[in-house]
Amino acid sequence: MTLYVERGFEQTTVAEIAELAGLTERTFFRYFADKREVLFSGASSLQELMVNAVRDAPATLSPYDAIAQGIAAAGEAIGPGHDRARLRQHVIDANNELKERELIKMATLSGALAQALHERGVDEPTSSLAAEAGIAVFRVAFERWVRGRDDVALGVVIDESIATLSAITHREERYA
Amino acid sequence: MTLYVERGFEQTTVAEIAELAGLTERTFFRYFADKREVLFSGASSLQELMVNAVRDAPATLSPYDAIAQGIAAAGEAIGPGHDRARLRQHVIDANNELKERELIKMATLSGALAQALHERGVDEPTSSLAAEAGIAVFRVAFERWVRGRDDVALGVVIDESIATLSAITHREERYA
Repeated sequence: MTLYVERGFEQTTVAEIAELAGLTERTFFRYFADKREVLFSGASSLQELMVNAVRDAPATLSPYDAIAQGIAAAGEAIGPGHDRARLRQHVIDANNELKERELIKMATLSGALAQALHERGVDEPTSSLAAEAGIAVFRVAFERWVRGRDDVALGVVIDESIATLSAITHREERYA
Repeated sequence: MTLYVERGFEQTTVAEIAELAGLTERTFFRYFADKREVLFSGASSLQELMVNAVRDAPATLSPYDAIAQGIAAAGEAIGPGHDRARLRQHVIDANNELKERELIKMATLSGALAQALHERGVDEPTSSLAAEAGIAVFRVAFERWVRGRDDVALGVVIDESIATLSAITHREERYA
């Protein structure tokens, strides 16, 4: 792990990354064309996918449920690639610079989702809160899934997390 | 604004920062001893304050309401310093490096709050979701307050945001 932290991603070879993740170099190249691609190549298309899902969600859906559709779309896109996601996470976790980039990506994504809600006519602060809550769900669900067993689908973990956040932020006295 | 982006925080003088924020250098030094202090000097004590508030919250409080106490404690600590917070935000917004540090600080804070919930006996994923939701509320409320009018208290904006997140994540069909 200290490999990246000490030397940075640029100075680390594919062979070393593969070894760190318990893979052969050949397996690495089955998932990724090169070491750059392991990281953020899919980020902008993922954001577009999520924004479109929010934009195209039925008009009757609440802001939170519209965001949930965006998160579900991400789950469908990423879900089939457990090994790929696990390897990517492994690389990112071991490198502070990459962790920062991941945080920035999430902040950008949150802004884009809030903007998609604005376009549905949702005001502030509801749009930002719903978008940030969606990112919270996505982050926690992804983390659980990527470190979890192979037979648990990302879509299932996301649905559970959407429902769990709804349940835990519910304040009983408001409905007593 | 491009000042920081082009040259970085280290290469920018206090006079320039003050000018950028529409302040005199003298006013700057009334708020901060030096330009380093404008930024993250309060971060670790703020985290400690929030973690203690969560830890000391009545045992009967739900995880979300315990987190809300932590956010409220931050609001009380930061709230009286509107000008100071506005200046700080101004500096951070203009510098990508500092924005990254702010994101890292928030991620660290989220982890610490989740840990404080663990110590209250709250399991995963509830603790991480409640902590991330709390950070979402804090971030959105702070943003509204720091860019808003002087006569709106941070504590009020936080309380509203806590309630708004609760309302928007509430799914009607669960209680129909």
